[in-house]
Amino acid sequence: MPVVVQNISRAELEVVNGFVGIGVATVHEAQGRTGLMASHMRPIWPRARVAGTAVTVELPPGDNWMIHVAAEQCQEGDILVAAPTSPCDTGYFGELLATSLASRGVRGLVIEAGCRDVAELAEMKFPVWSKAVSAQGTVKETVANVNVPLICAGALVHPGDVIVADDDGVVVVPRKKAEEVLQKSKDREAKEEKTRARLKAGELGLDIYGFRDKLKAKGLTWTDD
Amino acid sequence: MPVVVQNISRAELEVVNGFVGIGVATVHEAQGRTGLMASHMRPIWPRARVAGTAVTVELPPGDNWMIHVAAEQCQEGDILVAAPTSPCDTGYFGELLATSLASRGVRGLVIEAGCRDVAELAEMKFPVWSKAVSAQGTVKETVANVNVPLICAGALVHPGDVIVADDDGVVVVPRKKAEEVLQKSKDREAKEEKTRARLKAGELGLDIYGFRDKLKAKGLTWTDD
Amino acid sequence: MPVVVQNISRAELEVVNGFVGIGVATVHEAQGRTGLMASHMRPIWPRARVAGTAVTVELPPGDNWMIHVAAEQCQEGDILVAAPTSPCDTGYFGELLATSLASRGVRGLVIEAGCRDVAELAEMKFPVWSKAVSAQGTVKETVANVNVPLICAGALVHPGDVIVADDDGVVVVPRKKAEEVLQKSKDREAKEEKTRARLKAGELGLDIYGFRDKLKAKGLTWTDD
Amino acid sequence: MPVVVQNISRAELEVVNGFVGIGVATVHEAQGRTGLMASHMRPIWPRARVAGTAVTVELPPGDNWMIHVAAEQCQEGDILVAAPTSPCDTGYFGELLATSLASRGVRGLVIEAGCRDVAELAEMKFPVWSKAVSAQGTVKETVANVNVPLICAGALVHPGDVIVADDDGVVVVPRKKAEEVLQKSKDREAKEEKTRARLKAGELGLDIYGFRDKLKAKGLTWTDD
Amino acid sequence: MPVVVQNISRAELEVVNGFVGIGVATVHEAQGRTGLMASHMRPIWPRARVAGTAVTVELPPGDNWMIHVAAEQCQEGDILVAAPTSPCDTGYFGELLATSLASRGVRGLVIEAGCRDVAELAEMKFPVWSKAVSAQGTVKETVANVNVPLICAGALVHPGDVIVADDDGVVVVPRKKAEEVLQKSKDREAKEEKTRARLKAGELGLDIYGFRDKLKAKGLTWTDD
Amino acid sequence: MPVVVQNISRAELEVVNGFVGIGVATVHEAQGRTGLMASHMRPIWPRARVAGTAVTVELPPGDNWMIHVAAEQCQEGDILVAAPTSPCDTGYFGELLATSLASRGVRGLVIEAGCRDVAELAEMKFPVWSKAVSAQGTVKETVANVNVPLICAGALVHPGDVIVADDDGVVVVPRKKAEEVLQKSKDREAKEEKTRARLKAGELGLDIYGFRDKLKAKGLTWTDD
Repeated sequence: MPVVVQNISRAELEVVNGFVGIGVATVHEAQGRTGLMASHMRPIWPRARVAGTAVTVELPPGDNWMIHVAAEQCQEGDILVAAPTSPCDTGYFGELLATSLASRGVRGLVIEAGCRDVAELAEMKFPVWSKAVSAQGTVKETVANVNVPLICAGALVHPGDVIVADDDGVVVVPRKKAEEVLQKSKDREAKEEKTRARLKAGELGLDIYGFRDKLKAKGLTWTDD
Repeated sequence: MPVVVQNISRAELEVVNGFVGIGVATVHEAQGRTGLMASHMRPIWPRARVAGTAVTVELPPGDNWMIHVAAEQCQEGDILVAAPTSPCDTGYFGELLATSLASRGVRGLVIEAGCRDVAELAEMKFPVWSKAVSAQGTVKETVANVNVPLICAGALVHPGDVIVADDDGVVVVPRKKAEEVLQKSKDREAKEEKTRARLKAGELGLDIYGFRDKLKAKGLTWTDD
Repeated sequence: MPVVVQNISRAELEVVNGFVGIGVATVHEAQGRTGLMASHMRPIWPRARVAGTAVTVELPPGDNWMIHVAAEQCQEGDILVAAPTSPCDTGYFGELLATSLASRGVRGLVIEAGCRDVAELAEMKFPVWSKAVSAQGTVKETVANVNVPLICAGALVHPGDVIVADDDGVVVVPRKKAEEVLQKSKDREAKEEKTRARLKAGELGLDIYGFRDKLKAKGLTWTDD
Repeated sequence: MPVVVQNISRAELEVVNGFVGIGVATVHEAQGRTGLMASHMRPIWPRARVAGTAVTVELPPGDNWMIHVAAEQCQEGDILVAAPTSPCDTGYFGELLATSLASRGVRGLVIEAGCRDVAELAEMKFPVWSKAVSAQGTVKETVANVNVPLICAGALVHPGDVIVADDDGVVVVPRKKAEEVLQKSKDREAKEEKTRARLKAGELGLDIYGFRDKLKAKGLTWTDD
Repeated sequence: MPVVVQNISRAELEVVNGFVGIGVATVHEAQGRTGLMASHMRPIWPRARVAGTAVTVELPPGDNWMIHVAAEQCQEGDILVAAPTSPCDTGYFGELLATSLASRGVRGLVIEAGCRDVAELAEMKFPVWSKAVSAQGTVKETVANVNVPLICAGALVHPGDVIVADDDGVVVVPRKKAEEVLQKSKDREAKEEKTRARLKAGELGLDIYGFRDKLKAKGLTWTDD
Repeated sequence: MPVVVQNISRAELEVVNGFVGIGVATVHEAQGRTGLMASHMRPIWPRARVAGTAVTVELPPGDNWMIHVAAEQCQEGDILVAAPTSPCDTGYFGELLATSLASRGVRGLVIEAGCRDVAELAEMKFPVWSKAVSAQGTVKETVANVNVPLICAGALVHPGDVIVADDDGVVVVPRKKAEEVLQKSKDREAKEEKTRARLKAGELGLDIYGFRDKLKAKGLTWTDD
């Protein structure tokens, strides 16, 4: 029977907030290239960038009832992560639900399905990553789970995990690894800052990373036209 | 034999204009969730929002001749609705045709195919909803029907019907139902305004809509982590 | 064995620069509707518009090593054209590589695969046309060819060819035809300017192009509703 | 409110049976290239070939309740035509429902969604044209219309229309045109039989259809390598 | 660092063999509609039907080295489950690898990527469920994990889980639930056998399941044409 | 202006016939993994397997006129390779055209578009590799090139090249390399025959290819569960 799990353990908000401003690609690299959602998850307006803690909700196809149930489980700093139990692009979410979530301090929605009221959501600055935009409405007939682990766009999400999302997509950081991954992300950013300066000055990656010998060893040759 | 139907009956412009500013999702709901085009119909520039009367045109694949024919049938307040007779993403429409349509007071184009000159169309503020963007050119060889009922992106469109389009997609309102649907759309907006205020104040949909008992009756249970 | 071809012949930069500001659709028409890449090649930020000379690079799936190799072959005015040897949407390219390319005067990237760091690339104004956006990282293990002819998004590209790209997509102009195609593109623009003025004034394409008789000869008839 | 229309008018079974064995492509041509469903409608087992009268049913996403309702409206010679109200590939139909339909003389199913129990349906020789194969189950919660006109895979279907389906796809023949289209289909087959014999004997379409002059007039030229 | 986990715990072969001949749809229902892979996983030849224990392998894009590593971990009764770390349709698997796996008693392959040598595999009766067929070859450069939990086509697979696959797709049964799910599957089959007999005799699902009152309560009405 | 090139140079038929029975994957490997068409090119009936010389034809979207023109250029041993100038899935080809081509000794069709009359073509044993099956008809209005180099499904094809196709897809062998590639394909087959015997006997690829040390050097480790 479907269940709503209350009082989930969340990654610490201080750690979560550390991810704000760090790119999804950096986080994905920092945790060993894991946790990335499929590339069909796109922001509905450009330049959105958030980090928050996952509240998860399963959605029966064409039925958004459980989003209302999940809303009650959301608190400041959360991101709602919604996955249909069967692929469906219906418009499960619009500006009324966003108003409700925003009033609770929810930072955004990640939904492997459709979203509507895009213009209003952009104006509200409520960020959504979705698989589709669709005005198609939903019913409220079937119950499903809230705050159980689920797979969204090919990534496993546990309630309370950290979600980081930007123009590049969405990545999931397991709750217990959040602090470690944050540190590694920052280390990576620091290292990239140095590389960036050298590249900007005209040095080549070939030289910075010492690739020339390895390339030759692999059989690459240079010739003139 | 292909035919161009002239002097079609159109929804009254005063009614049509009432739809400007009302969202596609609202109109779709107000008319019982009918008339929505498929979600692959996307605006070529964000925040476009129009309502107008349909002039319909069938397009042979890779052939945009009939758009020129349809242009003559267009008048102030119209939206051209174009559907290829066989799926094809060629760029049937660009800024020259938009200039022609705009000079006649046409408010936009809905085409289940490709569009080109996107930068110029965005600068002109000529809105287009299309299935693809493609620079690929077309020929002018084959005739087809203008102002006959057709299916565009899965929706049945009769000439003179109301077309409403925004970031969420495109919806068709049958001409004879336009006034009724407009009223229902406005009623819906008024009702949503009240709900929005309550949600913004932190009330939950669960309570506003009285969902709790129904959820329990369906077997949903709440538990702690 | 894979080879890096150096000192390729490029279209003259003066000619190449003539293409800046001319639309992809115009160039495609001017050269007889050839050389257009598939419509899944989309700009990662709107209104980007470039012309440059092609440096080509083959990419093994999920492996961006050769982009570093290709960078060394790039010079002022170039556009890097990258095609995976097997379809793959991995994020081969981000802002570090863009910094490197930009420092060498490279004008953009055309890649039939994934790109990441979209927000940063948009801020840098480094234009990219890609098939996907993906934060997924790559390895550096396998060598492949640089500056050999390749097929990118269905178009044949020789090193040194002219690449023109805008919101409508990407078109390839063979190096030896660049001057001729530029002239024809300008002629076409001039001609369109005149047509545009007539259309804006309300004349119909039907009359400007003299279509009426041909349409009737094909069997098209006009009727009243 | 949703309605089940009973006692619909059907095309005459004698006429319908005349379509058995005539190809979908032939019927589509014979009625002026109209009524064809989208090419994503594929048979779940090869060489199935049927003609029957349409009973139509709307399906809420992920909900197959109405198929049970529609079953009661079916009789000898019918084909059930099912379209979800929002795109959804769930497996709405399997061998139990097929057993029920077959017991009533239903000849097949056309569904723009998912089907399951493919092996069993193939063994039963119950033909299905669907958009997907999926084992995913459905709920029984939401009511919808039976025997109202609907759009299935881009084609408008009225209850009682003739449905013809084979390896090439599915075509709809309006009930009132069935007799005329059948005659034209047979005429076309007779004509093609003659052409086939000439082509088999080595004559060229160029000569049989007299294309050479027209091709030259269009500017085609022949040259040696 | 990547790891190969040896000596995994597997579901008991006796239980696993009980699933042979039970349909994927039945198993999916019996375990509460969980564990189903996405519907793009299709058998490369029809009527294949297997049950076995999962050995899991991650595949870098375009690199099939780890299949060789995984082969050593396979034993009688296993099914190899392979997922690329980044979406890629390359042909990772052909008849040589199948020969190797078959010699170890492996019952089939489930791969969310491409497969080749389809004709040979069909002749060998080696079953494969894949996302694509592609002759494109792979490299052997990058290591990855074997026998760790992974997500394949949207389903979470642990090493040793039961995999059941047929024409309808692929379902995963968690190792520890295998016996329970098998029993429920058989119960379901027994129950369906009775329903099937009634449906075959012409009884309607409407009556067998007692739907009429519920449908009326939902507002469904019956009317004559 | 469009041109029909006559009397093209073809690969020698004796060499071409040597490819019959050699798999597409083998040929693709033997020529350095080049020349493979995209994996969306699928046979319309299973187990078809051909080799022949390419006659190439460009197709305007929705227009199959040039297939008739190309037919005259075909001779014993040819395979017709057809690519639309703009993506289009219309059914350009059916059994009448197949009858014509077969009467001239043509061995099959490769078309990056739609095909119809699938049942009839399967019965005739006329093999077709296509991107889609569609009953949708075409017009005969626009001329295009025959026997010029073209890109079909991402592969460059010159008239007279060798085409090899089977269940795995389609590969192009340049005319001048045909003999060399045939020899390499046979060498590869001979080598694989030996490997197959060892794999069948239970030896592992890990040992046959000596992978163990390289895997360890890359950091792969083995552990117990």
